[in-house]
Amino acid sequence: MAEETKSEEKPTGSVVLIGKKPVMNYVVACLTFFNSGAEKVVVKARGRAISRAVDTVELLRRAFLKDIDIENIEIGTEEITREDDKKSNVSIMEITLVKKSSE
Amino acid sequence: MAEETKSEEKPTGSVVLIGKKPVMNYVVACLTFFNSGAEKVVVKARGRAISRAVDTVELLRRAFLKDIDIENIEIGTEEITREDDKKSNVSIMEITLVKKSSE
Repeated sequence: MAEETKSEEKPTGSVVLIGKKPVMNYVVACLTFFNSGAEKVVVKARGRAISRAVDTVELLRRAFLKDIDIENIEIGTEEITREDDKKSNVSIMEITLVKKSSE
Repeated sequence: MAEETKSEEKPTGSVVLIGKKPVMNYVVACLTFFNSGAEKVVVKARGRAISRAVDTVELLRRAFLKDIDIENIEIGTEEITREDDKKSNVSIMEITLVKKSSE
């Protein structure tokens, strides 16, 4: 996932990683990216946080930024190695949001 | 959601509604639809069950049916009225799975 940390190099590809904080925190993070000029924000989540990612996008679009389109939704699986060296699979989701073009 | 119960009328549009049971139950439900000839299965979930819907699709595709494509993923919001007449919004997700064409 090293390429995710390169978001500084491409200011149009900002990433919000969903964790266990309240949904509103992530909505504000998305808002901040868009309001500072980002054309595209990727909301990423793993495991149980996936439903919170959907909540974030829905709240953002319905209550705060009407001019946001969902460009793409991807799901996948990531293999993670735990502290006890056991491997397990976790589901991941990425929702790509873009500013609506003003056509 | 009455239209979901009409799936008998369109055998190519089978619906698996994700609840609180173990993921494997829903994987088997999808498998059963595909193995009985369905070309398309829609996996639907609300709220916390959304992450389980992603788990279901990922497990199905990785472990059981390699020839399944994700045709579409939609997210949205549904307003539900609780017993105490309070309204609240819940996120929903629909993942449409199709058999890969044999090209």
